[in-house]
Formats: sequence, C-alpha cells, structure tokens
Amino acid sequence: MLSLDKVFSAQAVLKNILRETNVVRAYGIAPECELYLKPENLQITGSFKVRGSAYKIAMLSEEEKKRGVIACSAGNHAQGVALAATKNGIKSLICLPDSAPISKVEATKGYGAEVCLVEGCYDDAYQKALELRDSEGYTFVHPFDDENVIAGQGTIALEILNDLDNIDAIVVPIGGGGLISGIAYTAKQIRPSVKVYGVQVAGAPSMYNSVKDGEIESLPSVSTIADGIAVKRPGENTYALVKEYVDEIALVTDDEVSSAILALIEKQKMIAEGAGATAVAAVMFNKFNLKGKRVVAVVSGGNIDVTSLSRVIDRGLRNSGRSTSLLIELIDKPGQLKEISRIIADCGGNVTGVHYEKGNTESVNGCFLRIEMETRDFEHVNLITKTLHAEGFKLV
Amino acid sequence: MLSLDKVFSAQAVLKNILRETNVVRAYGIAPECELYLKPENLQITGSFKVRGSAYKIAMLSEEEKKRGVIACSAGNHAQGVALAATKNGIKSLICLPDSAPISKVEATKGYGAEVCLVEGCYDDAYQKALELRDSEGYTFVHPFDDENVIAGQGTIALEILNDLDNIDAIVVPIGGGGLISGIAYTAKQIRPSVKVYGVQVAGAPSMYNSVKDGEIESLPSVSTIADGIAVKRPGENTYALVKEYVDEIALVTDDEVSSAILALIEKQKMIAEGAGATAVAAVMFNKFNLKGKRVVAVVSGGNIDVTSLSRVIDRGLRNSGRSTSLLIELIDKPGQLKEISRIIADCGGNVTGVHYEKGNTESVNGCFLRIEMETRDFEHVNLITKTLHAEGFKLV
Repeated sequence: MLSLDKVFSAQAVLKNILRETNVVRAYGIAPECELYLKPENLQITGSFKVRGSAYKIAMLSEEEKKRGVIACSAGNHAQGVALAATKNGIKSLICLPDSAPISKVEATKGYGAEVCLVEGCYDDAYQKALELRDSEGYTFVHPFDDENVIAGQGTIALEILNDLDNIDAIVVPIGGGGLISGIAYTAKQIRPSVKVYGVQVAGAPSMYNSVKDGEIESLPSVSTIADGIAVKRPGENTYALVKEYVDEIALVTDDEVSSAILALIEKQKMIAEGAGATAVAAVMFNKFNLKGKRVVAVVSGGNIDVTSLSRVIDRGLRNSGRSTSLLIELIDKPGQLKEISRIIADCGGNVTGVHYEKGNTESVNGCFLRIEMETRDFEHVNLITKTLHAEGFKLV
Repeated sequence: MLSLDKVFSAQAVLKNILRETNVVRAYGIAPECELYLKPENLQITGSFKVRGSAYKIAMLSEEEKKRGVIACSAGNHAQGVALAATKNGIKSLICLPDSAPISKVEATKGYGAEVCLVEGCYDDAYQKALELRDSEGYTFVHPFDDENVIAGQGTIALEILNDLDNIDAIVVPIGGGGLISGIAYTAKQIRPSVKVYGVQVAGAPSMYNSVKDGEIESLPSVSTIADGIAVKRPGENTYALVKEYVDEIALVTDDEVSSAILALIEKQKMIAEGAGATAVAAVMFNKFNLKGKRVVAVVSGGNIDVTSLSRVIDRGLRNSGRSTSLLIELIDKPGQLKEISRIIADCGGNVTGVHYEKGNTESVNGCFLRIEMETRDFEHVNLITKTLHAEGFKLV
C-alpha cells in the first residue's frame, strides 16, 4: 500500500543518489500567473525517472538484488534503472528495440547497464524482457505501475512543498501516470488545498480517455513528439490514484509542446524534452484556470535528441509567427523577385531563404517562388501577405 | 579609480535589479577538474551586461539622468542599458545597424528603449550614437571601457567567492575586457591566490594580441560565432587591468565553442550563446592547466539566436564524430545503395539522409552519393569508412 511514510522513506533512501533540483521562478512564459518550474531535467540521468527505479531497487531483498533487475525502455526509465542498479552494486539488463537511437543506447550503457537489442518494436523488446525475467530470475522494474516506483516519484512533491509556500497548483505531465500519482498522493496528504493538474498530449491521451470514460482503456497507437509520455495504456495503480487525487487532466498539442520548448530555451535558457515541456505548455496555453495563482510546473526531463531539437525550434518559430514560408505564384515577367523583395523589406520582414519551384501554375511559363523569412508575429505576417496581395501577387 | 569599495557599492545598488545566479556544479563536461558554472545566461536580460550598465546609470547625476542615455549595440549591452534605464525611470536610445536581427530589436524595445535603426554596419551606428550624444546631450554608456561599468561586472566575483570556498581558478570570456577586468580586479583583491584566466576566440583575438605584443592593437576585422565578444580593439582601462590582474589568456576556435554549446545543452540542459560558452570551451579543451582544480567558468550570456542554434548543434555533432557526412563515388552499376546501406547498418551507423549528386566522376555514367548518418564517435566513423573502403567503395 502506498503511504506517506513510504514517500518519506524513499526521500531518505534517495538522498545520496539525487541531485538537488530546486524550484526556480520562470520569467515571461506565463505572465498571468506566478510560474515556477521544478527542473527535473537537471536531475541525474536527465529525468525524474531515477527516483522511482532507485527506490524500487533499494527495496529489493538481498536475494532479488543478487539476481539483478531487468527493464524495457528506450528512454529515461532505462537510464534511471541502469544508474540505480549500478549505485546499488547490482546487475541490470535493459531490453531495447534495435531501432533505438545510438545516443540512448550509449547513455544506457554509460550508466552501467547491459543492453539487449531486440529486433522489432517496443512491444517485442517488452516480450523479450518478460521472457528473460522468467528464464533468468531477474526482477522486472516497471516504469510506472508499481507502488515503490510511485513512492519514489512522490518525493518530488515533498521537495516542492519544502521549497515554496502557499502554492495553489502543481501541473504534471502524464504518461503511464507514475509521476503524477506520486506527486498528487503526496501533495494531497500534506496540503489538501493544493490542486494537482495532469497534462497529456493529444497524440497519446490514454489516461485522459480512461478517466473520462471511467475505465482503463488502451489506445491502438500513439503519435507525438513527447515520446517520453507516449504510453498506450495507464497502469492499474496509477489509474486508481489519478482518479482519486488528480483534480483535472488537459490535453496539449505537439505544436503547443514545441512552443513551450522554445519558450523554455529563450526565456529560461533551459532544455526540456517534449514530455518535459507539456506541463509548461498547458500553463502557457491556459488549459487550467490559473490566473493570478502561484503554480509549479514540473519539467520532467531534458533528454531531447539534439538532432531533433532543431526541428522543434523551427516548428515553434513558425507557430509563433516568427518565421514564415510564403509560396507565391509568379508569371513569366522580369523583375518580380526584386519587387517582392522590396515589399517584404519595406514591411520589415527579413528574408532568410528564396527558392524557385516548378509546379502547376496557371500560365505554362509561370513558376512558384518560395520565400522563407523572419517576422515579428502573426500580425506582421498578415501585414506582409496583405501588402503583397494588394500589389497584385498571388499567394498560394 | 576602480576600487573594491566601488564594487561593493555596485553590489548594493544592483541588489534590486539582478536575479540570483548561483554557481552550479557542471557534470560530465570536464572530468579532469571540478567544474562549476556561474550562469549569467540566467541573469535578467540573458547576460551579465546589465550589471555594468545598471551601475553606471545609477551613478549618473540627476542632470545627466534627466537627459537620458545612449548606447550602440546589437546585442546584450543594448538590452542591459535599456532595462537599467527603464528601472531608473530615465530615457534610453539605442542605435542599431538596420541589419540587426528582428529578435534583438524587439528585445531591446521590450526593455523600454527607443531604437534608432541606422543604415549601414555597426561602425555607422556607433558614429550616429556619438552624433546624437553631442547634439542631444545624452550620456553615452560604453559597453566596457568605463570604470563604473567594470565595477558592475566585478560583482560577479563577489558572488562566486561567496558561493564557493577554495576556488583555484575562474575562467572568463574576453571581448572588450570589461567582464574580466571587473572579475580579475575584485577576485585578486579578496583572494590573491585565485587564478583568473581569460578566453578569446581565434577569430577575434584583440586582447590576446595586445597583451602578447605589449600594446593595444586593433584588428582589421573579426569573424566568429561568438558575436558577443567580436571586438576589434580592447579598451584603455580594460587593457591595463587585464595586463595587471589576468594570469593567462588562451584562444578557442569556433568549433570548440560549438562543442561547448552542445555539451552545455546535453549535460547541463542549459543554453549558452557563443561568447557565453567560450570559457567552458577553454576548460573542455584543456587550454589551461586545471587538472584536479576547482574551477568556475563564467557562462556570460544565453542570448543565442534560436535560428542559428540548430547550425551550431550540427557543427558540434560533426566535431564530436556523432554525425558524419560521407561522399562516395558510385559507378553506374545496380544495387550499390543497397550494398552501402548494408555495410553501414552492419557497422551500427544510423543513416539519416541520402542524396544523389552529379559531378565530375571518373566515369561519365558515375555519380556521387552523399550519406548523412548518426555515429557514436570518430572511432566508429573510421570503422565505417574503412569497411566501405575494404569493400571497394571510393570515398571522396
């Protein structure tokens, strides 16, 4: 049974493993409320996950420890289990689909785990992990649906309540529900007036749907840039805890998550991964009633693949009107690029790319001109497109 | 005259303007020393610059304050002056070249300055600022060569020494020299045993050359991704202070700076701008003798244009062997892409892009194949190129 004592016990156990991640004030991201961040992206292994797995592993019997642990994950859970096992001096085996990015495989090995690459997808790796558990006697460390794991994540609530007085709300990402279960349970025991809000992405709304419909549901598939919370089915324990202790769940889109990642980079000089930025996205885009409130958003992790970071930045810039791509149909007449350049410059746009494209233009001799530019905001984009239009250019 | 009293006075004056930027431990970036960061990228306005300009402005006479201040900068200094003036309730006018990025112009306006866009380059904007100073009676706020500005930057040393005991060295970026002058002067007054090391980029070595040659020199031009320290000529005051108080100056390359930005993103989940990452780059690439030492690197700013961030990331990945681009000459024979894909996959490389390019191949029917891939490190890249070579492919 989950209990507050267990969470305090986890806090004591984790003391020598964790880095301090003090709550920090966030500036300029959500002007309507007093926003703070719990930066678990700065936690050792780059995410909160190490808390749950380290407590789980510490609580194993000597016999279980001797046989080692196994887990299945291509992400933060893998690194958490690997580090926790190594710190406890026991063996860990992590099953990964062979499509996992090299960086994740290397990070997992770097924390001392043995890696077993399984042909196929996540589900294949999961099956393989269960097989090895049964044949080799490893203890399986579940990423979320386990009371000790949940108690470990609950230590975050203790730290938040210790750092900051008079909090009105804590906003927390939800994947399988381990993080929010621990936080909501703990916060409500200590300070029942604190609201706990959960956030999922629209592309993986498993807990959202399950709570709404009053029973655990599985999604046929998930698709989101927030890969850390792309979970098809909530856990039994986490579902029950979320139903009891979480005040409200909202969904955010991938575009909103991209904007939140960008805002964290620009305003906070901080890197969050997709899942890690969902709570901030929910606050930015007013998914809950937080006006004038003192709010802590949990930034759950920062392990974003740097190669995909630039794509997210591009998307965030586009979604805030700060970069724009126009497609203009040109007729076969000299001087048109010059004319378009003049109009954009007069409006204060900053051209960053120009590209001629063939295509089905009305005139056989026509072509399309693709213009990439830096802009201030959507109003500025409108000004430019309207002016081009008024001067006779056809925007596609 | 610069004095320790002045630095303490600046600390008192700045108390209500600055954010706290406590020294943080940096993990995994420079394993041979005990590295800490002074994260001035988290300072209000995103850089340390606000310290100097805010102290300078606070010290103006009532008469001077009434007439307002003027500065010339496309970067952090502009934002520092704008904010400091606004907080003091006085007018500020910032001259910018009209080529300045929209984001910088908007940020400067956002802090309350009036912006004067000047046709031409930085030097034209600077001339315009001097003209306006003379005709309108504004006080010109120099970005570095001013004792009050230097005293303001010196407050960083007070904070570092307060945060951390037994520091062996402080490593500091150098542009015009205001930051390091303030830090070196202050640190040496309080704890003379602390070494202060300066870092410039190879593309803008004005202070490095001047100190080496024993006289102030001007560079004809500067070129670096660290635009915040692309300064052609050191100041008179700063040159004298650096000569007296700085132990050693080293140069880093743009590639080393890119690697440092990438390391800060991945290991510290932190965004630094080019100039801001130079001190970290110097520590990472062993420019000073810091083995086993307790070292603080000053991360001076975080205002990197997000649109250029992805280019820096690409460069950093390439420079650490984690992404590679191969150009392979193909003869006109079917099945070659398949064969190359097999070899790369067998070696554990992860192909992220494939592109056929025409060009001067030996055979008229030949072509070039450009392969982009994710790799582990240079050893891994070598393995792949050697294997391709051994199987008869010609790498260009």
